[in-house]
Amino acid sequence: MIGEKDNVLIVGLGLIGGSYAKGLRPSGCNLMAITRSQSTIDYALAHDMIDEGTIEEDSAMIGKADLIIFGLYPHTMIEWVRRNQQYMKPGALLTDVSGVKSGVIDVIQSFLRKDVEFIGSHPMAGREVYGVQNSDAAIFHGANFIVTPTEQNTPEAIAAARSLAQQLGFGRITELSLEDHDKMIGFVSQLTHAVAVSLMNTNDDTTHLKDYTGDSFRDLTRIAKINETMWAELFFLNKKNLVGEIDDFIAALEELKDTIVREDTQAIKKLFIQSTQRRKQFDK
Amino acid sequence: MIGEKDNVLIVGLGLIGGSYAKGLRPSGCNLMAITRSQSTIDYALAHDMIDEGTIEEDSAMIGKADLIIFGLYPHTMIEWVRRNQQYMKPGALLTDVSGVKSGVIDVIQSFLRKDVEFIGSHPMAGREVYGVQNSDAAIFHGANFIVTPTEQNTPEAIAAARSLAQQLGFGRITELSLEDHDKMIGFVSQLTHAVAVSLMNTNDDTTHLKDYTGDSFRDLTRIAKINETMWAELFFLNKKNLVGEIDDFIAALEELKDTIVREDTQAIKKLFIQSTQRRKQFDK
Repeated sequence: MIGEKDNVLIVGLGLIGGSYAKGLRPSGCNLMAITRSQSTIDYALAHDMIDEGTIEEDSAMIGKADLIIFGLYPHTMIEWVRRNQQYMKPGALLTDVSGVKSGVIDVIQSFLRKDVEFIGSHPMAGREVYGVQNSDAAIFHGANFIVTPTEQNTPEAIAAARSLAQQLGFGRITELSLEDHDKMIGFVSQLTHAVAVSLMNTNDDTTHLKDYTGDSFRDLTRIAKINETMWAELFFLNKKNLVGEIDDFIAALEELKDTIVREDTQAIKKLFIQSTQRRKQFDK
Repeated sequence: MIGEKDNVLIVGLGLIGGSYAKGLRPSGCNLMAITRSQSTIDYALAHDMIDEGTIEEDSAMIGKADLIIFGLYPHTMIEWVRRNQQYMKPGALLTDVSGVKSGVIDVIQSFLRKDVEFIGSHPMAGREVYGVQNSDAAIFHGANFIVTPTEQNTPEAIAAARSLAQQLGFGRITELSLEDHDKMIGFVSQLTHAVAVSLMNTNDDTTHLKDYTGDSFRDLTRIAKINETMWAELFFLNKKNLVGEIDDFIAALEELKDTIVREDTQAIKKLFIQSTQRRKQFDK
């Protein structure tokens, strides 16, 4: 449980990093931030989100942190840790928010100092908008939080990651291996984004079509508004799983298409009944 | 504008037919209903949704109607009109709510008595639940309504269909030919349902996965809960358009997959930026 005695450093004060700051504010901990732009620091200070912040990789600030939360893109985070681990306080705990774990957590753990520990975390929350100005601790409330321990991690670090998620108001908190996490995310998150993007890219007459769309089309394409830099990185990092899910999805859609081409009433009803039964599980 | 002097008959008192009844109740018109099950009639009478109702194809009731609204599936409606047009009042106006128009409106108009008129309507509203018990006039408020006139229709009938939509609180009311309607619906409605169904049918481990899904997956699969009888009929009626849209969508998804396989950052960002720009038009 983060409290007044703790020094917490958030690196990368964007939508998620900023939401962590707002969520931890009530704990009374000393909140520090290192991020790319001064305007972000100014905004966070002006809105009392943090106690101190800088755009420098400030060795003193890094050395003071008991907990460092990375709100950076995976590759940026890996290089940041490589450059700055020398300044970290012995016993410091590090965690992240990135959406892909293999090729990220294992890489950092492979070169990380043995007297600090990195525990992978994935807060499954977000918005279609970005930046500290849109940060909001409420996006975490009731959301899923996944801790991704490896054999490098201690029970204490796993417990600390779970406790942080609880403190931020997450709902279901679970643990998955790096591999299981990435396989799951390839389906429930990445495939759905790939589908939404492709749905918007299917038809170029959208200016005309928007006059006719109902809620269904809007719901299916909401996430087609996508941060191209972050998602390109996440898709490539999880290439094997995602490509496999896309192939499986196309096979399922081809099967449905085939029942339409053949006008096979029994076969198409079977597919509709299956999708209905499966989807109902998600309403429970 | 429907008023106290009008006799309105709703044939098929389900979710949509029932919502028409509730939406027309304030007009003070005489509301009659013919539907399949007595329990539906009992419910509608008990909740003061209609003035009279029967499960018979009551020639007197049919002959009294100035306006007949069909809440039936397309093929059922076509046969109902064929059987019962003999009882209709000269000058009666007929309209429907079906989601596909070619092969439905043109077929009915081809055999319909010349002293009554059928004007095609598509209220673009619905819910994932069915039956008169779930009917709700509010589902129409602000929704899209499409009138599909043919050369068989008079300006008066087109105006009457638009006025009915206005009275029910629909938002944007437009006119499309049968062909343009079905092409549009093949993309914005049918393709999205085919995608949602196939997404649920892609992975059979949903019991496990539901612990990890965020809003995105739930939004994309909400409409995978689907009425298999109605949608099988609608998909087959619009087979040519829908199969074409599925092929175009798969091509777009394959293009995205190819940028992932090649790890082509510039190409995938181009696709993300395009989908983002197109989707933003829908927020206006």
